[in-house]
Amino acid sequence: MIKIITISREFGSGGRTIGKKVAAKLGIPCYDKDLIEKIAEETGYAKEFIADESEYAPNSNSLAYMFIGRGLDGLSNADKIWIAQKKVIEELAEKGACVIVGRCADYVLKGREDCLNVFVYADKKLRAERIVKQYGESAVEPEKRLADKDKKRKLNYKYFTEQEWGKRQNYHLSIDSGFLGIEKSVALIVDAVGGAAGNE
Amino acid sequence: MIKIITISREFGSGGRTIGKKVAAKLGIPCYDKDLIEKIAEETGYAKEFIADESEYAPNSNSLAYMFIGRGLDGLSNADKIWIAQKKVIEELAEKGACVIVGRCADYVLKGREDCLNVFVYADKKLRAERIVKQYGESAVEPEKRLADKDKKRKLNYKYFTEQEWGKRQNYHLSIDSGFLGIEKSVALIVDAVGGAAGNE
Repeated sequence: MIKIITISREFGSGGRTIGKKVAAKLGIPCYDKDLIEKIAEETGYAKEFIADESEYAPNSNSLAYMFIGRGLDGLSNADKIWIAQKKVIEELAEKGACVIVGRCADYVLKGREDCLNVFVYADKKLRAERIVKQYGESAVEPEKRLADKDKKRKLNYKYFTEQEWGKRQNYHLSIDSGFLGIEKSVALIVDAVGGAAGNE
Repeated sequence: MIKIITISREFGSGGRTIGKKVAAKLGIPCYDKDLIEKIAEETGYAKEFIADESEYAPNSNSLAYMFIGRGLDGLSNADKIWIAQKKVIEELAEKGACVIVGRCADYVLKGREDCLNVFVYADKKLRAERIVKQYGESAVEPEKRLADKDKKRKLNYKYFTEQEWGKRQNYHLSIDSGFLGIEKSVALIVDAVGGAAGNE
């Protein structure tokens, strides 16, 4: 019986919106930015700092990353956030049915038979249009914004999970939200769960 | 409106069974081995020869493949089969709603807005169990049979399409049939089509 749904997504694919809609349809909570608040409570770090460090770090300059900013315990800020993030996600999964967007939740909850891991992606052109509509114009070209954000997510995922972000084998369902549309993507995930989440 | 469904699949994932069941639910034909017969009619080659050449070739010894077995027209047997296969698939798609299993149909029909491309995969252990159940024991270990067949499909796909077999971006939906099960995989594809195929 599937109880937990993790959603990983390319920037601009609508994955977060899909996660919220799936949760609403199933009547279960969707954790997204709330995760950052919970990690802040765990670690004592400011929310903005966590958002930057955990989604963006480690940057491609990985040697510098390895040696800078470590405490006496030998752990970097990013490591500490990772440990807290892992704990928060595991506790949420134990608490009950939910949707978790991003933050390598698929990896943290890997192997749980009650957890469906979904990856949402879309054509670059559609994503570029979507981020301009959603987040507004910026001095940086939308294509560059997409590439930067996806690269950072990819590196972050790789660093902590030693797996490849977006590779189908790490997910149970990969959905092209550009081709299928947001509503159909939501319906497919709800169908995959079989309406079971939240009813246990 | 989705009218055509192509199903690409890892060996032993149940993709062919899923394709047949989807077609039965939608009341449309499923082309699988029938494709070979149609290609035989086009080319004049024997069915067995086509099955071997088109799914298996080109083998990894690609230099030999490039120079052996070419006719006066400079085309190898595999090339001729590819051209006939492409023609057969395009004609079937024009004819009406259908499911097409394998044979790079996703690539041949790429860009058609009425065509949903699905990839079906599953855990190696489950696939190994499935092929022994489905095709019986053999002197070759099931894990080796899986690896051989998938490698051949991958090479064949790469050779003719210059794309990567199984890479999510080449499909609209990738389904882990091991985790979700055959029936749910069928239901998801039918839902993705929106019950529209065959009704046009």
